[in-house]
Amino acid sequence: MIVRLAKNSGFCFGVKRAIRIAEDESKKRGEKLVTIGPIIHNPQVVKRLEELDIYSVDNIDEIEKTPAIIRSHGISKESMKALLDKKVDIVDATCPYVAKLLSTGAKLSEEGYFIVVFGTKEHPEVVALTSYLSKDFIVVDSVEELAGLKAKRIALISQTTQTFSTFKKLVEKILDTTFELHIVNTICNATTIRQNSTKNLAQKSDLMIIVGGKMSSNTKMLAKISQEFAETHHIETKNELKIEWFADKKKIGISAGASTPDDLIIEVYNNIINISGSEKIVNSIDDIPVFKEETR
Amino acid sequence: MIVRLAKNSGFCFGVKRAIRIAEDESKKRGEKLVTIGPIIHNPQVVKRLEELDIYSVDNIDEIEKTPAIIRSHGISKESMKALLDKKVDIVDATCPYVAKLLSTGAKLSEEGYFIVVFGTKEHPEVVALTSYLSKDFIVVDSVEELAGLKAKRIALISQTTQTFSTFKKLVEKILDTTFELHIVNTICNATTIRQNSTKNLAQKSDLMIIVGGKMSSNTKMLAKISQEFAETHHIETKNELKIEWFADKKKIGISAGASTPDDLIIEVYNNIINISGSEKIVNSIDDIPVFKEETR
Repeated sequence: MIVRLAKNSGFCFGVKRAIRIAEDESKKRGEKLVTIGPIIHNPQVVKRLEELDIYSVDNIDEIEKTPAIIRSHGISKESMKALLDKKVDIVDATCPYVAKLLSTGAKLSEEGYFIVVFGTKEHPEVVALTSYLSKDFIVVDSVEELAGLKAKRIALISQTTQTFSTFKKLVEKILDTTFELHIVNTICNATTIRQNSTKNLAQKSDLMIIVGGKMSSNTKMLAKISQEFAETHHIETKNELKIEWFADKKKIGISAGASTPDDLIIEVYNNIINISGSEKIVNSIDDIPVFKEETR
Repeated sequence: MIVRLAKNSGFCFGVKRAIRIAEDESKKRGEKLVTIGPIIHNPQVVKRLEELDIYSVDNIDEIEKTPAIIRSHGISKESMKALLDKKVDIVDATCPYVAKLLSTGAKLSEEGYFIVVFGTKEHPEVVALTSYLSKDFIVVDSVEELAGLKAKRIALISQTTQTFSTFKKLVEKILDTTFELHIVNTICNATTIRQNSTKNLAQKSDLMIIVGGKMSSNTKMLAKISQEFAETHHIETKNELKIEWFADKKKIGISAGASTPDDLIIEVYNNIINISGSEKIVNSIDDIPVFKEETR
């Protein structure tokens, strides 16, 4: 029996990377660290980080001398300045896709475009982004909010987690009124990528185990996609696994929703390995064999 | 009875301007002039220019010392160089919208974009444009021709006379494959503008006379739009005008298709003026009262 994890499952690349950076820094420094806002709203992850002496602060004023980790969402120009003024060590775990968005926004704004940001005003990523823009910008999360927009040179960028179909509708609407439209597609299609990875693995498996909240819509979608290609079970924890599912199964696939922490995936993997009679359990997500996708 | 001409009727702005520049230069210089290619494919205009000693040449090699007029379509970089090498006087009557297209294309190409030109490869304007681009470009006149396009940074520009609806379809298709799309809408909506002017005048007239070829689709469209608002007659020449149309009519409007030369419009105007019993005929299109549109 082979057991393989879908290539892009669980937390997105940027979040995984920020957690890894935080853990690595903690090991390297052996001292207390803070993150500017929680790395992710997940109790297991928060707990694990607290065990490593990594705590979340909401306000930079709370920091005195503790080294500060910038989470995947990035921070505003003002917050960065406040951090620099404090002269604390800064560990930048901003997601590279978000960092690209921030620098793109700053550049387009400098070039004199009126910036249309597709996103949610209060989202930390959008708060960070707009701090780098001149006053000529609007944040919209629907086509309707474009009403009355008038500018000759417009640049359109997006919060990394928005949907491409609405992005295209914004483009169509803006084109009707402007002379120049400079679009940079800063959407990170983590959801699409995750779904494709699940589909690819399901096509090469007899049995698929999808790990994630029963109420999580993105996890339910993964299960739905998977069951088109293989017998599929959607579980929240290892305790739901049933030995009979694995009878006569040779190729087992595991995938997980965006809010599923690695720990749960590791436990599910190890339980399946036990069921198969093997004892090669793993301690890290990185030790689980990943299904190698053909490059598109 | 008042007789008024629609604001944007007959030849487009760029062609009218080029003809006026050619005529003015001829009067000013009092010598033979050449145009690089015919200013417009219209026998009456060609004849009138020849009477002013202005001739069309197809090839720059044919020019020796005669001052050369660049027509509204512009010329290629190579042709411009050839002209400069000949050290002849150059009169640039390139349409400002075309000139803007050429400079925009050159700038975007310099900035490293792969350029998608929406246009017809053989059209003089596109020939001129592409001479200013690096080798990274394609000319397409349909969405299908985009198949296989792969570039991370794309700029999209258009021959000035293309249709906006297809332009938008190109945008939608390109967005699916590229990270950055810099759109400059270089389409001159002369057709739309002409139709709007006809509609505006028809709404304020009792009778509309539309001048242009019976087979000309853009003229037929003007007549169709006009008759929604006023009694409308589509004629090719003054000889088709009928006295009875004008009985009890107080406000007469005239509009003309894109290929209708000024002379025909002037003749129609003067005949209507005669019918009305007035003797204030005009010799120039500029002397015909134009319906003042409200600025949008």
